[in-house]
Amino acid sequence: MNDPHTERQGTVSIVTANLAISLDGFTAGPGQSLETPFGTGAGALTAWMLEVDQPGRERDAQLLRALHENTGAHIMGRNMFGPGRGAWDESWTGWWGSEPPYHAPVFVLTHHERQPLEMDGGTTFTFVTEGPEVALERARKAAGARDVEIAGGAATVRQYLAAGLLDELVLHLVPVVLGAGERLFDDLAELALTPAEVIGSPTVTHLRYRTAQQS
Amino acid sequence: MNDPHTERQGTVSIVTANLAISLDGFTAGPGQSLETPFGTGAGALTAWMLEVDQPGRERDAQLLRALHENTGAHIMGRNMFGPGRGAWDESWTGWWGSEPPYHAPVFVLTHHERQPLEMDGGTTFTFVTEGPEVALERARKAAGARDVEIAGGAATVRQYLAAGLLDELVLHLVPVVLGAGERLFDDLAELALTPAEVIGSPTVTHLRYRTAQQS
Repeated sequence: MNDPHTERQGTVSIVTANLAISLDGFTAGPGQSLETPFGTGAGALTAWMLEVDQPGRERDAQLLRALHENTGAHIMGRNMFGPGRGAWDESWTGWWGSEPPYHAPVFVLTHHERQPLEMDGGTTFTFVTEGPEVALERARKAAGARDVEIAGGAATVRQYLAAGLLDELVLHLVPVVLGAGERLFDDLAELALTPAEVIGSPTVTHLRYRTAQQS
Repeated sequence: MNDPHTERQGTVSIVTANLAISLDGFTAGPGQSLETPFGTGAGALTAWMLEVDQPGRERDAQLLRALHENTGAHIMGRNMFGPGRGAWDESWTGWWGSEPPYHAPVFVLTHHERQPLEMDGGTTFTFVTEGPEVALERARKAAGARDVEIAGGAATVRQYLAAGLLDELVLHLVPVVLGAGERLFDDLAELALTPAEVIGSPTVTHLRYRTAQQS
């Protein structure tokens, strides 16, 4: 198996997404809310990310770092940026405080116009009301030779996957069964991916797939 | 990560199961029947097994061979042995013809008493009406120093998993989304496994987990 990141180095930028997923296919538990954006009972999906600075987790850390470093722009769904269903109050600047961890342009899919929001540390939130394809065009342009990451949530990743706009999907398979929540692969037509890389670690298995478009 | 098969070589026999599973968690498609025991649209779950003698599939072949060689006895659910819900006609001897591929004792969970069935090539089907724990006792005894495999179907594997009787679970993760069918991990309480080994191949990813009991 070849690593697509090696093959394309310095040549092609791709559209990618990476999600933590349980053995039973959930990318979030039930009861998603302001306080628990991944839902209740879904702590295991994210716990490993918070432990990557611990001994024995070097491969997990390296993989997350590489995903971040390769990314030149992000796209996120409206629920990932903020709560509720309507327009946000101008005082709402996302979940991440004054310096969000993106350090890059972020395009937010929304139905409500809003001026771009420049945050500390190089993150700019740009609000796109013209739909996912326009957001992708703008993100590609902003990313240049680097990748565009569909940051989430699961519904937004699914939307790009279903539209054939995703080149690569990285799943961090967490060895737990949650029993309830939001499933990444629900309501998708039949779909086949191509395994490109697997990386095992003591706590999570990283699975890199190319989509049919890419392979 | 250590391979439990290396660690325990010649020492402990374990209870194991291996199942092909889709990205969305299905181990069988919808519409399971006599003609399509894995359901319709689920050909991808089994196709890779039929191709293991082709070039580039050596690791898949080796893994399946090792699973088979380590196994001293099998347990299967009644639906895996035969169709229908009642007692089978005495003429029904399983789906596999006169020489089934087990070449070992097979214990069949059923509610209907029946004399053991000796087939060609070393397979004997023994019918157990006293439930899964008794079947396991008898299979352990028959397997000696080798492993007991819960052969399937998914409901039977789930039953042993939920009862804490499974030491190891091997998932052959097939990179397809089926959208419907029978899910291995449905109706299980929350559960955590421990990754023990991952083996990537061009078509399928093999994931070996230990259960909490074992780790």
